[in-house]
Amino acid sequence: MKLLTSLLAALISAAAAQDPLPSWNDAVPKKAITDFVQKVTTAGTDFVPPAERIAVFDNDGTLWSEQPMYFQAFFIFDRIMALAPDHPEWAEKEPFASVVKGDLKSALAGGEKALIEMAMATHAGMTSEEFDKIVSDWISTARHPKTGKLYTEMVYQPMLELLTYLRANGFKTFIVSGGGIEFMRPWAERVYGIPPEQVIGSSIKTKYEVRDGKPVIVRLPELNFIDDKEGKPIGIHQHIGRRPLMAFGNSDGDFQMLEWTTSGKGPRLGLIIHHNDAEREFAYDRESHIGKLAKGLDEGPKRGWSVVSMKDDWQVIYRLAK
Amino acid sequence: MKLLTSLLAALISAAAAQDPLPSWNDAVPKKAITDFVQKVTTAGTDFVPPAERIAVFDNDGTLWSEQPMYFQAFFIFDRIMALAPDHPEWAEKEPFASVVKGDLKSALAGGEKALIEMAMATHAGMTSEEFDKIVSDWISTARHPKTGKLYTEMVYQPMLELLTYLRANGFKTFIVSGGGIEFMRPWAERVYGIPPEQVIGSSIKTKYEVRDGKPVIVRLPELNFIDDKEGKPIGIHQHIGRRPLMAFGNSDGDFQMLEWTTSGKGPRLGLIIHHNDAEREFAYDRESHIGKLAKGLDEGPKRGWSVVSMKDDWQVIYRLAK
Repeated sequence: MKLLTSLLAALISAAAAQDPLPSWNDAVPKKAITDFVQKVTTAGTDFVPPAERIAVFDNDGTLWSEQPMYFQAFFIFDRIMALAPDHPEWAEKEPFASVVKGDLKSALAGGEKALIEMAMATHAGMTSEEFDKIVSDWISTARHPKTGKLYTEMVYQPMLELLTYLRANGFKTFIVSGGGIEFMRPWAERVYGIPPEQVIGSSIKTKYEVRDGKPVIVRLPELNFIDDKEGKPIGIHQHIGRRPLMAFGNSDGDFQMLEWTTSGKGPRLGLIIHHNDAEREFAYDRESHIGKLAKGLDEGPKRGWSVVSMKDDWQVIYRLAK
Repeated sequence: MKLLTSLLAALISAAAAQDPLPSWNDAVPKKAITDFVQKVTTAGTDFVPPAERIAVFDNDGTLWSEQPMYFQAFFIFDRIMALAPDHPEWAEKEPFASVVKGDLKSALAGGEKALIEMAMATHAGMTSEEFDKIVSDWISTARHPKTGKLYTEMVYQPMLELLTYLRANGFKTFIVSGGGIEFMRPWAERVYGIPPEQVIGSSIKTKYEVRDGKPVIVRLPELNFIDDKEGKPIGIHQHIGRRPLMAFGNSDGDFQMLEWTTSGKGPRLGLIIHHNDAEREFAYDRESHIGKLAKGLDEGPKRGWSVVSMKDDWQVIYRLAK
């Protein structure tokens, strides 16, 4: 009997060690994911060939945090500070003047127009390679004002496990984010294992130019594409050209992406991450100015989408040290 | 001695059987390709990790024929004929009136403006899924006016071997074509082994809409992006987000794509296919109204790009029956 007990314990332990999603509690969302993956990868009516196994992930609030501001906004502010010495005119010009004074709230008072103006001033006017280096340098040193962590340490451990699990099951994993496509690409492969060609995001226009015999791609201060809300299915269609099997988001900006994904024929999975863990991360939904989630909470469950409670369904939040 | 000869013959035969590019004659371009692949896949200073092994291919004139007109133009004309009964006004309206009368030369006399007008009339006004079906139906039945072949039988056997060879060596193969992205995607995977997410092309704008509870992507009669000349590096940057290692083209519309590719650091390969085989395919270059190749012939070799003579370097032209 003792032997049997030992054997059983060893078996359970081995099973746990093989759990591909160890940071997910054994609750409804985890089961929804693993059941779905098993279904589409097993011979039968719901089998899906590997080439069609596409999973799309929002980034801000889905793969990493987004409070108290989108991390790209911190990048913009840091860039304005760095560039300010070359722009004496900013001292008198909003929203730049407020940023330079450290008054980010006033800087953001101008709403979307002010944000786009600041984005253009900091994301355009250089070559693609120069911008890549600026982002790479920033992301490897800048720290979150509340946690003191590197931003790339604020990616969610359960989602990293999910990305790995899906890829191990033949899925191609894509980011589909309202954030800047070239803001994510320099680090998405290292941090998420997602190569640049599988990153979809908002973009500005660019221009091809040959300078002294050397071709460059120059970033222009003009919006090209906003990859948010209705833009997400459009971005998916443009970049991927087929409907995903699985979609993961956290805000109403992801609603159409989940709607488009889960309206496809055959098995589909939509999942919303609900930020309800004020202690370990942030708690916000219906009233939040960032990552507002209302329609998704009301309609998602009716449409069969899973809702992850970060508080109850995730054993840990942030990336575990390697 | 007889035994040795037999052994040698068997060895040569085995080697030939293992040749990944059997339709390529053992000439300079083939050696340039295989040397390059060996270099970047072998440990050493020129080694490139698989994730960075990107190869880009023009389509018209590089993977399949493009004479006497781009095959997509035949699609446009066939669509106009099919739609004409619903458009009595076309009888009086150029360029449609000429198409309906079978006078394609007059229809094309209006140049790019007329072509775009015809493209919009035939590529927009339906959902993405409806257009996918229209293309799929057409490509599986329409035949080339000169050869009588299905258009997908007019893909080049040597290039199919090259695609397979590169993928076997860890490359991701992309199409980067001036042709319509949604005109290529429905069949590129079946014919070339290139999935939709690795097809880059020209596009029109689209709109996300929910019709009676069912979301659709509606194709709009408005240009979004022209993936030709300077547009090719821009399209590569937008979709792939890193510089390719290898680029294959056949016309001056591919010049910037080869320039951008071969200007990258480390080993790069640019290759131009020269259509000089009037007997087995078509012969055209400097003076052609389609697939004009002049700058590439003059400057390509100075830049170290290989030039394939279809006549001398390819044992067969079109896809061999399977």
